[in-house]
Amino acid sequence: MKDFWYECKHVCKQTGARYGILHTPHGDVETPMFMPVGTLATVKGISPEQLKEMGSQVVLANTYHLWLRPGSDIVRDAGGLHQFMNYDGPILTDSGGFQVFSLGKTRKIEEEGVTFKSIVDGSKLFLSPEKSIAIQEDLGADIIMSFDECAPYPCTHDYMKNSVERTLRWAKRGQEAHKREDQALFGIVQGGEFADLRELSAKTLVDMDFPGYSIGGTSVGEPKPIMYKMIEDSVKWLPEDKPRYLMGVGNPIDLIEGAMRGIDMFDCVLPTRVARHGALMTHHGRMNINNEKYKRDFTPIDDKCHCYACRNYTRAYLRHLHKCDEIFGKSLLSIHNVAFLLDLAADIRKAIQEDRLADFKEEFLEQYGRDVYERAF
Amino acid sequence: MKDFWYECKHVCKQTGARYGILHTPHGDVETPMFMPVGTLATVKGISPEQLKEMGSQVVLANTYHLWLRPGSDIVRDAGGLHQFMNYDGPILTDSGGFQVFSLGKTRKIEEEGVTFKSIVDGSKLFLSPEKSIAIQEDLGADIIMSFDECAPYPCTHDYMKNSVERTLRWAKRGQEAHKREDQALFGIVQGGEFADLRELSAKTLVDMDFPGYSIGGTSVGEPKPIMYKMIEDSVKWLPEDKPRYLMGVGNPIDLIEGAMRGIDMFDCVLPTRVARHGALMTHHGRMNINNEKYKRDFTPIDDKCHCYACRNYTRAYLRHLHKCDEIFGKSLLSIHNVAFLLDLAADIRKAIQEDRLADFKEEFLEQYGRDVYERAF
Repeated sequence: MKDFWYECKHVCKQTGARYGILHTPHGDVETPMFMPVGTLATVKGISPEQLKEMGSQVVLANTYHLWLRPGSDIVRDAGGLHQFMNYDGPILTDSGGFQVFSLGKTRKIEEEGVTFKSIVDGSKLFLSPEKSIAIQEDLGADIIMSFDECAPYPCTHDYMKNSVERTLRWAKRGQEAHKREDQALFGIVQGGEFADLRELSAKTLVDMDFPGYSIGGTSVGEPKPIMYKMIEDSVKWLPEDKPRYLMGVGNPIDLIEGAMRGIDMFDCVLPTRVARHGALMTHHGRMNINNEKYKRDFTPIDDKCHCYACRNYTRAYLRHLHKCDEIFGKSLLSIHNVAFLLDLAADIRKAIQEDRLADFKEEFLEQYGRDVYERAF
Repeated sequence: MKDFWYECKHVCKQTGARYGILHTPHGDVETPMFMPVGTLATVKGISPEQLKEMGSQVVLANTYHLWLRPGSDIVRDAGGLHQFMNYDGPILTDSGGFQVFSLGKTRKIEEEGVTFKSIVDGSKLFLSPEKSIAIQEDLGADIIMSFDECAPYPCTHDYMKNSVERTLRWAKRGQEAHKREDQALFGIVQGGEFADLRELSAKTLVDMDFPGYSIGGTSVGEPKPIMYKMIEDSVKWLPEDKPRYLMGVGNPIDLIEGAMRGIDMFDCVLPTRVARHGALMTHHGRMNINNEKYKRDFTPIDDKCHCYACRNYTRAYLRHLHKCDEIFGKSLLSIHNVAFLLDLAADIRKAIQEDRLADFKEEFLEQYGRDVYERAF
């Protein structure tokens, strides 16, 4: 794929983290990066112009959700996701696998694919590697994912081995089915907490020569040390000249710990989801805008933040909007949280280039609070 | 009040409608104008920057709602509404009367004021002319309203006469209580459908010499011909050199019919409220974005509209967002409807200056549909 490649520009002497440029058909982006999630072709409450202003690079959309609503044929007929949602930067879609498997007992996994019920209307649906690729070709993102099973945590070595081997066969089928020249199809490393299965998964995928590799099956309930080991057990088999994407991870500290382990791309619904409930990430740690003490606090959410919400509105106003369930409040809080993670990724890139990511991590923990390891964010 | 005055610039030779400039402490605005409603210090789903971009001039906020949440003392301590909501254009607040009286049987009217229950927590509240002014002084809008009774429609001449006389005594008490030099306090003409009471109300208020006059008690269920007559029965007693505000009216045709009867200011929650349910005003009449036929319609809502939503998004995308209950969809549809009424007011001003408002009305009805007289919009 000629329009897509990764260029490592600098490796942090203190940590081994890498700063790089990812070239995509919709422009170059800097890594490590945080990718805001626009599940249904909209990052909830944030306009494309606001995303750009915040320094957003790649935006994610969910295959499963868009397949059901409005339907991938409609997105295709609109000219693809970029046109449909009016975002001219790079877009990434997942494979639908994670959503299908998180449905639990309502689905049935077979070699051919997965049968499950629609969350929208309860109808019976079938997703396979070929089908997932076909949908993602309709959606037209720059970066797309292989259809994989995201196995539960914990599970037995036997279950995981079977799952990994099937996911590898699915990756092969997806690769064969994929025809669009303007999309980079990533392979997804699975294997849970089992180092031998991570190795099997990574090595097999690397042999298949994907333009990028994702790490799946993390952030599914395992303790942080296990997650970090899963990353290490995967990354060590991946080539230096390809991008690495840690799927579904957006706890601030995990961006730093992930980057230190060689991760280039992160995504998570966390910043927008918690914002809609009034929970905020700040340079001074977590805060909840519902707190009575912000009632007449006329300072911004975060004095170190330069987002639209922090430049223009006070905690008292944001608390008022949130208490009254106002749309604009949800937008402003979402903007702040997404800006926080985009800025954190930018700070990580700077620290890598200055060979001081370990120092940066200490400074971050000092400000944010060391209990971030025990919390969702 | 030296910073507030109305200047009539042109009277339409065809209709008698007037084009003018209203000078306020937060800038000059052109009339006739539509004023978007920001009940709780936010025009639902629309940022101040977007309002400005759409040509919004005066924005309205509701005294009753802000008194309950977050509390007028908090808005005062924030530096007033302009600072609190970050809108540097002129702001208007109502008196709280309309909301209190729309509570129906749960309130008790006495000469001193009105006792009623809070919609937020059920607590017992009391609002009087002096209290309404005190709250509005805290909120700090440029234009504020006298506390009035908005009597039900229909009601007897006896009830209305009592009500109008009390409202006139309340207007006097409010005028005496009002101290801020940077706020224009309007008197409100009431009297329902009774020409003699409209005359009594208007003449008494004019004797009291307010910097502007509102017309209340319309759009409360009466047929349109009766509403238009209420306007005529009120306006004819009002001075040429003061602005006239028709409260709570936002049906497109009523902006035209109102302007033709000498009205300068209009406001209504209609555009944002119906937008949140997918109902849109367009140059081709009403449309509902939920309609199946827009599923793969990749044209804008309204090809004659230049709002942000129409410049950037298709009906198919907006329908999708609306179906999925996405915040961004509510924002885009609200932006379109508010822009439609702001643009309509601009078109009315142009037609007045060109002495062709009656012709414009015919052209509008031809496009929008003549059934607009029978509908909410």
